[in-house]
Amino acid sequence: MLKCEYAVRGEIVIHAQRLQQQLQTQPGSLSFDEILYCNIGNPQSLGQQPITFFRELLALCDHPCLLEREETKSLFSADAISQATNILASIPGRATGAYSHSQGIKGLRDVIAAGIAARDGFPTNADDIFLTDGASPGVHMMMQLLIRNEKDGILFPIPQYPLYSASIALHGGALVPYYLDESTGWGLEISDHKKQLEDAQSNGIDARALVVINPGNPTGQVLAEENQRDIVKFCKNEGLDLLADEVYQENIYVDNKKFNSFKKIARSMGYNEEDLPSVSFQSVSKGYYGECGKRGGYMEITGFSAPVREQIYKVASVNLCSNITGQILASLVMNPPKAGDASYASYKVEKDGILQSLARRAKALEDAFNNLEGITCNKTEGAMYLFPQIHLPQKAIEAAKAAKKAPDAFYALRLLESTGIVVVPGSGFGQMHNPASGLRRRRSPIISRFKAFHEAFMAQYRD
Amino acid sequence: MLKCEYAVRGEIVIHAQRLQQQLQTQPGSLSFDEILYCNIGNPQSLGQQPITFFRELLALCDHPCLLEREETKSLFSADAISQATNILASIPGRATGAYSHSQGIKGLRDVIAAGIAARDGFPTNADDIFLTDGASPGVHMMMQLLIRNEKDGILFPIPQYPLYSASIALHGGALVPYYLDESTGWGLEISDHKKQLEDAQSNGIDARALVVINPGNPTGQVLAEENQRDIVKFCKNEGLDLLADEVYQENIYVDNKKFNSFKKIARSMGYNEEDLPSVSFQSVSKGYYGECGKRGGYMEITGFSAPVREQIYKVASVNLCSNITGQILASLVMNPPKAGDASYASYKVEKDGILQSLARRAKALEDAFNNLEGITCNKTEGAMYLFPQIHLPQKAIEAAKAAKKAPDAFYALRLLESTGIVVVPGSGFGQMHNPASGLRRRRSPIISRFKAFHEAFMAQYRD
Repeated sequence: MLKCEYAVRGEIVIHAQRLQQQLQTQPGSLSFDEILYCNIGNPQSLGQQPITFFRELLALCDHPCLLEREETKSLFSADAISQATNILASIPGRATGAYSHSQGIKGLRDVIAAGIAARDGFPTNADDIFLTDGASPGVHMMMQLLIRNEKDGILFPIPQYPLYSASIALHGGALVPYYLDESTGWGLEISDHKKQLEDAQSNGIDARALVVINPGNPTGQVLAEENQRDIVKFCKNEGLDLLADEVYQENIYVDNKKFNSFKKIARSMGYNEEDLPSVSFQSVSKGYYGECGKRGGYMEITGFSAPVREQIYKVASVNLCSNITGQILASLVMNPPKAGDASYASYKVEKDGILQSLARRAKALEDAFNNLEGITCNKTEGAMYLFPQIHLPQKAIEAAKAAKKAPDAFYALRLLESTGIVVVPGSGFGQMHNPASGLRRRRSPIISRFKAFHEAFMAQYRD
Repeated sequence: MLKCEYAVRGEIVIHAQRLQQQLQTQPGSLSFDEILYCNIGNPQSLGQQPITFFRELLALCDHPCLLEREETKSLFSADAISQATNILASIPGRATGAYSHSQGIKGLRDVIAAGIAARDGFPTNADDIFLTDGASPGVHMMMQLLIRNEKDGILFPIPQYPLYSASIALHGGALVPYYLDESTGWGLEISDHKKQLEDAQSNGIDARALVVINPGNPTGQVLAEENQRDIVKFCKNEGLDLLADEVYQENIYVDNKKFNSFKKIARSMGYNEEDLPSVSFQSVSKGYYGECGKRGGYMEITGFSAPVREQIYKVASVNLCSNITGQILASLVMNPPKAGDASYASYKVEKDGILQSLARRAKALEDAFNNLEGITCNKTEGAMYLFPQIHLPQKAIEAAKAAKKAPDAFYALRLLESTGIVVVPGSGFGQMHNPASGLRRRRSPIISRFKAFHEAFMAQYRD
């Protein structure tokens, strides 16, 4: 537990919460009047509105008596009412307040399986779906299953979303990093994977699985299909389970890239279930829906033997089930309104508006970074983050040393204390070539504040 | 992971799910037409209705646009509307779709802290509250914290809710059972605790904490205050953290017993926070609310040092936060409508109706058990279960042996296959003196079916 680190909620964030309390108790005591949390993808905390149709459905499922009242017809859309009726009919006893099957409500898993099959063009089995309270508990469940002792290793990307290193550490396993190449837009070279794997093996590590995050977090790239095929082949050849974090599947902002699930890639290559045990993680927290607080998600588990599946089921059972609101939402994001539905037009306007806004802000922030002294930033293709490289002057590095801080943490702390903007130092994602700093992207006032801070910082420390 | 067992969702339940599918695909193919799940406290799955006021609030918080509409006033109670407005105001940005603080929304923790203080008459700090997705994740978090290696032991009661043994096994710790005495209505003798602790210590086990479940699960007793004081003293003297499962605090059915939190008992004895690190687990799944599917709950953590608290915070952070719907519900069960509120009268009718029905059914089942050949059952005082002892005839034990089953599992399987009633064999709760069988209590049709089964079973196997 002591080894576990989780920078997206780490030192900088705890300090930010302290400053936030100070702003409440002593307004005007700081040079800014709000904390802007860019440390984690949490869009509704920054004003993004939920999709109306999804919330109508949740309200109706929470309080089904509404379906019997005449006034409801003027308050809710007709298809929300009919779909709520269908969802409730698929829940045993219409009881949204009952524990469900440990894997989640069967009727909702059927809907999700159909959604995955429609997305990929390959069959999907509802028995392979495990509904979870967001993606994180699914990742923990798999780490608990895969890691027997400190010699069991998991390959994971650097830079990474720190959930992976945290979960591997919590479960007492060995971290086997592979590196994404900033110079090729965070692409990967399978020869690097091979080298890292062999190094680990020569240290007695039994590598059991490989984590891949696509679209990338925090790096924002969308993997080329060729990269995906390389990974599938590598896992198959080396006998590694493939753990695919695919929670940003709806967040792609460039025309020349599209999302392909790793399952689709593997099946297209002719690999069947038995050839490659793999897991796909999905969440209601990302995409255009951004329903982080609802804690919904699922894992699709294919290719594991019956005894292993029994163990996964058992661990899922010990927590009884994931929350039903999150389960319903997970089924909705995999089965949103279709053309012809009463809510489709307004749903489409909301969805497109959110995705266009995310894309626009990504581009604006990328451009702002690339126009600032000492900062370079790759093109953002997907997900919700930018991961710029900030070349700090020697004088700043020395000031950091004097303050007993890593250079990137020093920079992030200064940024917070000057502007209220919360970012995660690049080292929190495992990035080695300091000084770098991850800045998660947000609405435009952030850009001007950041720009002013950075210019003042450089003026102070420029060599 | 392989050592972990979880009988309340184990072999019998999996077989029941198979039979349920058979009933759906081939109606009429079994001698009963529904599966009656008595394996776990899941009241809404058996027709218990949620508290209307709580569901009104959830619907309004899920879809706050409703608060701006005139029709809402005729669909929702006035105090639901005003309280939803207050709850939303306490959530940063009114965003029920945003990740919250890792411990849960501060405003909701304030409400819970006030509810605990009012219940106990001792001060409570909102910073001591960690909101969780039901009680189970809280228990896992504490086991993860307490168990460093296989020599770290946790004392827990037998019979027990198997979450505890499962979680200790999953985290690789040592099980140190203490025994509840069936002959004294599941009371406890602190001399037995002492003996079990010393035995464990002589085997090199470093006992770190003691679990107590009050009211008892699956045994249904409410601990005498004297027993509670003994436990507090014992933990204090032996340097054990006290983990108190208090999720049945609203489920007490006898006039001569009342719920006392362990914190209240410890403070009444003059022990301060520093004297005794302790945790109280509460859940929205039990009580009169029975909102299992919403996965809400909290732990109140007192007396742990700052570095230990930091570790708890870190582990809570790795899962980001518990679901906001469950967080809201946890605040509601600790702050229900008060006399004078618009909804109070109807809330009171619903609450009393549920608690009276639970008490009535407990008594009816207890009487039915005690009138059957070979069955004895203690008086049920609280919680949601009965734990009868079933004295199986020798012939039945031999039939079980021939079928390669434990006698209690054999009985439970026969009961399921004859009636559709799902119970948990006593051995699933760790009870040693077989043959015994746990039967979780439910509505009355179960009694007649159970009675007919048991009489036929005894007729077949009577010595």
